[in-house]
Amino acid sequence: MTKPGEARPSDAPRRVGVVGSGLIGASVGLALRARGVDVLLRDTDPKQVEIAEAMGAGRPWASERVDHAVVAVQPHAVAGELRALQQAGLATTYSDVASVKERPLVEAVQAGCDLTTWCPAHPVAGRERGGALSARSDLFVDRTWVVCPVPHTTAAAVEATVWLARTCGASPLRLTPERHDEVMAALSHVPQVVASLLASATPRLRSGEPALAGQGFRDVTRIADSDPGLWASILEGNRVPVARVCRALAAQLSRLSDVLDDGTADEVAAAVTRLIGRGNDGRALLPRKSGTPALRWAWVAVVLADRPGQLGALFTTIGEWRINVEDVAAFEHSLDAPAGTVELAVDPQVADDLSERLSAAGWTAYRRS
Amino acid sequence: MTKPGEARPSDAPRRVGVVGSGLIGASVGLALRARGVDVLLRDTDPKQVEIAEAMGAGRPWASERVDHAVVAVQPHAVAGELRALQQAGLATTYSDVASVKERPLVEAVQAGCDLTTWCPAHPVAGRERGGALSARSDLFVDRTWVVCPVPHTTAAAVEATVWLARTCGASPLRLTPERHDEVMAALSHVPQVVASLLASATPRLRSGEPALAGQGFRDVTRIADSDPGLWASILEGNRVPVARVCRALAAQLSRLSDVLDDGTADEVAAAVTRLIGRGNDGRALLPRKSGTPALRWAWVAVVLADRPGQLGALFTTIGEWRINVEDVAAFEHSLDAPAGTVELAVDPQVADDLSERLSAAGWTAYRRS
Repeated sequence: MTKPGEARPSDAPRRVGVVGSGLIGASVGLALRARGVDVLLRDTDPKQVEIAEAMGAGRPWASERVDHAVVAVQPHAVAGELRALQQAGLATTYSDVASVKERPLVEAVQAGCDLTTWCPAHPVAGRERGGALSARSDLFVDRTWVVCPVPHTTAAAVEATVWLARTCGASPLRLTPERHDEVMAALSHVPQVVASLLASATPRLRSGEPALAGQGFRDVTRIADSDPGLWASILEGNRVPVARVCRALAAQLSRLSDVLDDGTADEVAAAVTRLIGRGNDGRALLPRKSGTPALRWAWVAVVLADRPGQLGALFTTIGEWRINVEDVAAFEHSLDAPAGTVELAVDPQVADDLSERLSAAGWTAYRRS
Repeated sequence: MTKPGEARPSDAPRRVGVVGSGLIGASVGLALRARGVDVLLRDTDPKQVEIAEAMGAGRPWASERVDHAVVAVQPHAVAGELRALQQAGLATTYSDVASVKERPLVEAVQAGCDLTTWCPAHPVAGRERGGALSARSDLFVDRTWVVCPVPHTTAAAVEATVWLARTCGASPLRLTPERHDEVMAALSHVPQVVASLLASATPRLRSGEPALAGQGFRDVTRIADSDPGLWASILEGNRVPVARVCRALAAQLSRLSDVLDDGTADEVAAAVTRLIGRGNDGRALLPRKSGTPALRWAWVAVVLADRPGQLGALFTTIGEWRINVEDVAAFEHSLDAPAGTVELAVDPQVADDLSERLSAAGWTAYRRS
């Protein structure tokens, strides 16, 4: 099997079509283009294709035949798109990226799709904001790409999908559609429900009180920024496993409430210690991410005066030095503050040089340890 | 009232004692030392004092008298430490930092503490890792420091506590102990319970399956790394409000499960759309770190080619238009990708103008909805 950067086997797809140029589809396009694969893009929203093309994720897809087609649409739309592509005979093999797997399979059967050329799949990666503008070529690096073939699926369709996963930098993992949906209910769908329910508390607070939300609340509720329409499709598509996990969680909350209401101080302390301890154990089982881009870069912090043109002057200066800025972060300041800071991610080999040159040029700059 | 960097009023505390040299106590010490305040530290664990002293948070506290004493211990230990300090007559005024407020108050009354010299308080800041080693001088900057005086509390005790909050860079907010505990149940204590319950799912998974946890699961469960002993003290100390919020959440989960099990597809989609939308609304109410609502700015996304000078050219152009960029975010791309995006926060009144001007100048730019 190929890994990123390795030579492709001679029968690997050379031209891939992507239906749906949102976050996932455009990110697949960016990743494949970086490996020299010809990528064709379509979307019901022409603006998404325009943005994805401008970002370098591929070119518009009219009716050219491709080796493999990736159906990167919301779960409820997978069967319909697959059926249309197959009827037009546009690809040799197909896969999808939907975050639920049983429902689209049932719908594909009912729609009369050809099950031999389609390998259901799900790259486990995402961001709280969708759309082509949020796409990244490394979205799938070191992530898991679940592959859920059924007995009808041909080896060729599975191989093309495994190639797709590896070419995007992900690790393929085979699961049955049923097991996939159970695991995703626990690890993604119910956490989304809970994050949104917890975030809903702030509108009931009085003035000033939302400021009592600490970093913990911000982290727990970050995914509550997600798109309602997308999640309606996901949760409706995985309703039975999600309901089961929600009920189990509700029962655990009720049992804890009983102890909190009626237990002795020692009983409460014992129950909470067990609860938090089990959470510690669960966290320890999460695989560590390797090769995260943040570790490849060094950060240089620069203090800026808050007036027009400061950022322009800074980046013009850096551009003249031919130093490439890989990321910009943590530029936070209040409108009242006299100054803010901007942090620049650069190649570690040039960080000290950049910091010294900036200081010599009159900026307050230092390399972050 | 003093702000960081302003001259202190002549009656402000010059020597502060801190009982408990963990994360909060040592961070208070670091912040006060940075403002020139003499800080004395004690802890039942001498190693914590040793670490805190090495970090510059203060010096060991034997029996010197101080102007103000901060009781920075777990909630269940506040009343006992306060009583001991008051009996030894070690400070003029006292405050604490416990994340629950009613229970320590009741316990202080029962222990016979002097309520006139003590102002109950809670700086809303923390990290998932405790101990002096995790202390930071800026832990409280732009955070809220809740101040919960009772009718017995003297003005001098309140003033010293407000001074403490401001000197550490925080904003004081007055609440009753009861209201504090209700708000913290919703914004901190129940989110902790839920994060730990969700994290407990992974030990029940099979080999390879924990890799299906995406960034969302990692964020939602990050605080599940917290210390069981600390949380036993917090949740036991706030058991009634926590039980109430847990039961309400359990009821919401049960109602959603009913819809998922028995509703039509349209009913499920409507319920989920409402749920996620309310979460969106709740998140929008969270203040930014500096107290600036995120909604004050509009975001314009611009696609950039990945070569030196692109950011410089962009900001030079914007600077010439006299448009002030308030924040820069989400400039993320891999080293392989042909292009990335940068997002610019600007006054909402100029966002459309900026987007149109950039497009006219040949950039691919969109205002984010």
